Amino acid sequence: MAELTGNLLVAQSGGPTSVINASLAGVIQEAGKHECIEEIYGAANGILGILNEDLIDINEQKAKTIAGLRYTPAAALGTCRYKLDFKKKPEQAAKDMERLFEVCQAHNIRYFFYIGGNDSQDTSNKINEEALKRNYEMRVIGVPKTIDNDLPHTDNCPGYGSAIKYAATTVMEVGIDVASMATDDGSCCIIEVMGRSAGWIAAGTVLAKRGRDEYPPHIILLPELPFEDEKFLAKVKQTVDAHRYCVVVVGEGIKYPNGEEVGADKSRVDSFGHPVLSGAAERLKEIVQFKLETKTRTVLLGYAQRAAEHLASLTDSNNAFACGEAAVRAAVEGNSGQMVKIVRAGSNGAIHWGTGLQALADIANVEHFVPRDWISDDGFLPNEKFVQYARPLIEGEVRAPMEAGLPKYVTLDPSRIEKKLQPRA
Amino acid sequence: MAELTGNLLVAQSGGPTSVINASLAGVIQEAGKHECIEEIYGAANGILGILNEDLIDINEQKAKTIAGLRYTPAAALGTCRYKLDFKKKPEQAAKDMERLFEVCQAHNIRYFFYIGGNDSQDTSNKINEEALKRNYEMRVIGVPKTIDNDLPHTDNCPGYGSAIKYAATTVMEVGIDVASMATDDGSCCIIEVMGRSAGWIAAGTVLAKRGRDEYPPHIILLPELPFEDEKFLAKVKQTVDAHRYCVVVVGEGIKYPNGEEVGADKSRVDSFGHPVLSGAAERLKEIVQFKLETKTRTVLLGYAQRAAEHLASLTDSNNAFACGEAAVRAAVEGNSGQMVKIVRAGSNGAIHWGTGLQALADIANVEHFVPRDWISDDGFLPNEKFVQYARPLIEGEVRAPMEAGLPKYVTLDPSRIEKKLQPRA
Repeated sequence: MAELTGNLLVAQSGGPTSVINASLAGVIQEAGKHECIEEIYGAANGILGILNEDLIDINEQKAKTIAGLRYTPAAALGTCRYKLDFKKKPEQAAKDMERLFEVCQAHNIRYFFYIGGNDSQDTSNKINEEALKRNYEMRVIGVPKTIDNDLPHTDNCPGYGSAIKYAATTVMEVGIDVASMATDDGSCCIIEVMGRSAGWIAAGTVLAKRGRDEYPPHIILLPELPFEDEKFLAKVKQTVDAHRYCVVVVGEGIKYPNGEEVGADKSRVDSFGHPVLSGAAERLKEIVQFKLETKTRTVLLGYAQRAAEHLASLTDSNNAFACGEAAVRAAVEGNSGQMVKIVRAGSNGAIHWGTGLQALADIANVEHFVPRDWISDDGFLPNEKFVQYARPLIEGEVRAPMEAGLPKYVTLDPSRIEKKLQPRA
Repeated sequence: MAELTGNLLVAQSGGPTSVINASLAGVIQEAGKHECIEEIYGAANGILGILNEDLIDINEQKAKTIAGLRYTPAAALGTCRYKLDFKKKPEQAAKDMERLFEVCQAHNIRYFFYIGGNDSQDTSNKINEEALKRNYEMRVIGVPKTIDNDLPHTDNCPGYGSAIKYAATTVMEVGIDVASMATDDGSCCIIEVMGRSAGWIAAGTVLAKRGRDEYPPHIILLPELPFEDEKFLAKVKQTVDAHRYCVVVVGEGIKYPNGEEVGADKSRVDSFGHPVLSGAAERLKEIVQFKLETKTRTVLLGYAQRAAEHLASLTDSNNAFACGEAAVRAAVEGNSGQMVKIVRAGSNGAIHWGTGLQALADIANVEHFVPRDWISDDGFLPNEKFVQYARPLIEGEVRAPMEAGLPKYVTLDPSRIEKKLQPRA
């Protein structure tokens, strides 16, 4: 493959994670090693930044800022939810694609890296196909990122290990708190985590049990399995009878057997008369309190579980960084239309992490779920197969420097490069 | 004062904190230094353990377990919500008090330490008065504990510094996450923290701003000030217009000018037809989404904010430990009917922490609120006076040992001492 000389553009997409910036640091630091890569640009707020020709000059950043990205949460370049939606908005998508190539050509972008989840890999795939069609030489590599861990072909997705290290620690800490208050009255605590269709995060909190049956969490509800009131209530009651308390973890997207989301129950109305999405944990709390008369509290981790850098996994962060590096190396070597994937060799205790490549076409729009045989027969807990898989992902701690009692994170200098085009129509 | 020889009983009460066990460790380790203290017992689940003669043998614990209490959250002895309620249940309370002294006499308890908040200090006061009345020589010292920080006379309450270190870090991390996704659509994130009548925890998240106006949190709603929809919405709108996003922190107990709790809005009904307490954050989310049409997400930290040992403040933990030590020293020196308080000397940058004593009668049932002149004129943010007060409380990190990616906390050996009495009637 002939050497391709030109500029690099990197962008971040979708919901941030604790380690999405570690991948960015990997891309930038690796890019600095290759002479064929001239300038390094970052798109402000993902695809929107490209369309708006809103590009951040990475060469103007201090080296210590780039190094600091390895322990800084959220998307340092900014991110967005904007999509090139060829299915629902084909005209807008075609127009956006046209504009995107105008911007790439204007700035001689020859290397494009998109750090994101399912949708972003699909977008990268389309951009790669379009570049081939246009005969515009640009190498496009996807860098995986999602706390949901639902990308196929990769061992795990950067962001996931940190999310479950935080979630499992929180469940463990809340669990011993609730246990220490457990008296004959009985109590229940329900912790809601992210995961609309895949239950990977909820499943990951099983690590808090550390192999002990009696330790919380006692019940983990995954969106992969249908939720049944009666079975669930019986299990809560059995747990409270045995331990005087019960800790439940629920993935936000759990569904009734008819496919309706538990948290999207429409019978609730707010004070304006609108139906309210109560959320899964609140709905379960209602059920437990009404049917079992057991005092119940909820915790809703929300964005904290994807931003809690202070408890990020070093393994996850290192893998995220390695994915960024590998993406650049792959592109320089002549690859395009691929996503970097994480590869695990060895077994528990002596795992070697590496990277590989997988065609973007194999990734786009395929969702990877928790396998049924990684879950107990009764469906209430992931089993040892899952634990073997997940445990290595939370090993090690990312230690951000502290200042006045708070983590000291970095921010990029927002300097933009000069625009060459008319504003986007 | 003549030397008093006998056994020691220590108990933990009410909601746990990240450092309630540090106070317990202080009591135990200091007690070991005094020959007048013979046996050391811990009541299982607070006052309930005393009434049930359910006493844990501290002398049977390993030294490394006791040392580990300094970094272990939740109440290692167990705690309870049970009260000696002389107002509402005078007969039961009198019966309980009788039983309590039976147990103390049966086990020759001469030193009693109760680690707790407002109610517990009141209970300690009553126990002390009762001992005097009965002419039963027993020294009673209260050890402060509450994340709510609402005890009077003490500079701060052990548990508070850790709660706000965790809450401020979370607000900071969620804040930069939300900021990094901020596009022209605008967005709002509302984080609910504990504090039913005092807003100390909510106020403490102002530290996440690190002195920068534009940094989140942009609005902090304290239960001390009446909540007004229109003023609040105007402030949210102004913030979203300026920054494209707005982060709000709300103390759970905020109230309308008529005194009704915002989170206890009764117009909402669940699917069983019962009124639902939506919680303050959910209620504010409804208002923002309905009136401003700004996409809003919530975070509900719940028990995590009092159990998050993994981000506990070393200053707080050391003060908690010092309170336990000081309680024992005070009792051995002949004091009774006192609560240990934390005393601050020096100013920011060179603070010296010490302890003092305050009569339990001065503490019981007095609630300490955030002073009005520590809050901005518009009521939406604590001011520099508050920051000067709070910032030293989050200094330093408690670092628990880690094992397989999770904190490794200790548990007490549950060995009980032999009962000498008939079961409680």
